[in-house]
Amino acid sequence: MPESISQNSVGLVESQTVSFSQPFALSCGRELARFDLVYETYGTLNAEQSNAVLICHALSGHHHAAGYHSMEDRKPGWWEECIGPGKPIDTNRFFVVSLNNLGGCHGSTGPNSINPDTGKAWGPDFPPLRARDWVHSQALLADYLGIECWAAVIGGSLGGMQAMRWSLEYPDRLKHCIVIAAAMKLSAQNLAFNELARQAIVADPAFADGRYMDNDAIPSQGLALARMVGHITYLSDEAMANKFGRDLRSGSFELGDEDNVEFQVQSYLRYQGSQFSGNFDANTYILMTRALDYFDLAREYDNDPVQAFGRAKCSYFVASFSTDWRFSPARSREIVDALIAAERPVTYTEIEADEGHDAFLMPIPRYLDVFSAYMQSVGAKV
Amino acid sequence: MPESISQNSVGLVESQTVSFSQPFALSCGRELARFDLVYETYGTLNAEQSNAVLICHALSGHHHAAGYHSMEDRKPGWWEECIGPGKPIDTNRFFVVSLNNLGGCHGSTGPNSINPDTGKAWGPDFPPLRARDWVHSQALLADYLGIECWAAVIGGSLGGMQAMRWSLEYPDRLKHCIVIAAAMKLSAQNLAFNELARQAIVADPAFADGRYMDNDAIPSQGLALARMVGHITYLSDEAMANKFGRDLRSGSFELGDEDNVEFQVQSYLRYQGSQFSGNFDANTYILMTRALDYFDLAREYDNDPVQAFGRAKCSYFVASFSTDWRFSPARSREIVDALIAAERPVTYTEIEADEGHDAFLMPIPRYLDVFSAYMQSVGAKV
Repeated sequence: MPESISQNSVGLVESQTVSFSQPFALSCGRELARFDLVYETYGTLNAEQSNAVLICHALSGHHHAAGYHSMEDRKPGWWEECIGPGKPIDTNRFFVVSLNNLGGCHGSTGPNSINPDTGKAWGPDFPPLRARDWVHSQALLADYLGIECWAAVIGGSLGGMQAMRWSLEYPDRLKHCIVIAAAMKLSAQNLAFNELARQAIVADPAFADGRYMDNDAIPSQGLALARMVGHITYLSDEAMANKFGRDLRSGSFELGDEDNVEFQVQSYLRYQGSQFSGNFDANTYILMTRALDYFDLAREYDNDPVQAFGRAKCSYFVASFSTDWRFSPARSREIVDALIAAERPVTYTEIEADEGHDAFLMPIPRYLDVFSAYMQSVGAKV
Repeated sequence: MPESISQNSVGLVESQTVSFSQPFALSCGRELARFDLVYETYGTLNAEQSNAVLICHALSGHHHAAGYHSMEDRKPGWWEECIGPGKPIDTNRFFVVSLNNLGGCHGSTGPNSINPDTGKAWGPDFPPLRARDWVHSQALLADYLGIECWAAVIGGSLGGMQAMRWSLEYPDRLKHCIVIAAAMKLSAQNLAFNELARQAIVADPAFADGRYMDNDAIPSQGLALARMVGHITYLSDEAMANKFGRDLRSGSFELGDEDNVEFQVQSYLRYQGSQFSGNFDANTYILMTRALDYFDLAREYDNDPVQAFGRAKCSYFVASFSTDWRFSPARSREIVDALIAAERPVTYTEIEADEGHDAFLMPIPRYLDVFSAYMQSVGAKV
């Protein structure tokens, strides 16, 4: 827990919940009669309502992006490095909105919410979602908050995909689109890792075809394995080498000691896996990885990203990290090439960083500097 | 099944078994009172016994490296591309010996063999093994076959590690050491993937702490997940893109069809996983990945590979593949650098290939040409 909260943090924050009770049509053809979104805001909305920015979260993210919920919190929000006074997303200038996506497990309506038709948790019956469903529900949140046009929609990884989708679905409702460590669609290798993670969950007997809530159980071992897959792919080979090497946590390499030998990286993965399985819902994990798998920015535009971005009216900032092998710089350059061909203004930066995909969450000086410089150009007045 | 067997195959082959009944001391300090090794040979041992080559297998390999066991076999041995008349390991010139390693599950003594002390399968009580234990048991096989000195010891991946270990343990018993797609030790990322695979097996309730044989069950889902991890890491991103892309096996991306949508790569991984779980023993998989994890060529030589290779007397051929990210070319170059510093003769080739780590099994023309050319230099007479 922080003894005192740093001056460059947004400090103590509270979550809020908004309920939407109009039927909400989903991409899958089904509709939700009602749903809640939980969100946080940091900074102050100006009189012209022109300084609002939306944060879209990644696979295992949520609404709590910055600050602390109480003085007892051990950790701040997940994007504390980038959101706060004087930071790239400067809360002295911007009104920052961060939500837990529909289908999530941190307060917004999702698989572990009650299905009003049955009075029981939705579980695996929760409708499948696409990134565009998130974008549409975020637009309702914007309406609710009185925000006609975002100064910027911002996201890393799956969040960057939502930001791009915003620029096609609502071209008049954002001025800037910030796409960090993302891609226009997953590669076969990305699909394979997601399939591995889902299979690990499904293979856990406690998963019970997704009806684990009925049994008051959670598929904790499956979730832990899924999280291990994530951690390995979020980190680069270099980052793992720097962090763990082949160091031992216990035992020695001397003969006959196998039962006690444990590499640092083993215990790290086991710990991360077990932590996650207590904090995340398995059906949500499956739902979110499927949304990732099926995301394909240009599919409905003749598979032509230039045609897709031809709809957009905003400016783009695209960033990638040298050792990110999940969404490599090459995938970001595909976005940039399509934007250039579509004659959209685009700023691109490729940051040298050892941290792999996780770099987008890290305080890497050049990243923060370039991100801050771009955000300075986002015209916002308090 | 082959209607006829190609002229450049070794054709129909038979496995043989040899039993060793002298106590065999293991690196872990325990000993085996007796053990069997199953092996195959291809080609003819010359009068001088100077044309024998040993094939060391990789993680999930076995003794059946070339040819067919019957006309009903659907597939030949695992290294058919490289072993046979006129192939790099030319059976017109060499007497090829290929075995299933101790601890394996294809006929050699291992976890699913009977423990003479209990009359039941060893299971998880089978002693842990190191690459050097395999090398020592392979030396007993050489003695049995009357082979004082191998013309070459040859292996890919974990097999290449055994070949390197041979050159340090028995410097006078091999003339050439062929190390393909290997490394002197695993990286933290390699360790992490092995840990993931093992955790997937251990998490399967059918594993029952390794005593599944007692329950007449196999941890098939855990093994399938472990194999999926393997497949993803053996293939490169490029190979997966070429092989599957984002092609669908069933369903369409049209809305509302999620339950039926399946990517080609998903069904491929599920199929490979389920096949493997019927063919491989879980305790053997754990034993072999641990041997891989703990392999560290130079640990007992002050962690100095130059000092380690200073013991060796043979010549080396080292090969790597451009898109192999499990044991990348950089890892092979570390071997080459150490050999040069140790003043050992070394030939190195880095093959451009999209197939990732699996490339070492593939008929890539330049690979076969360079490998053949080197093997021509291995002085062998029939």
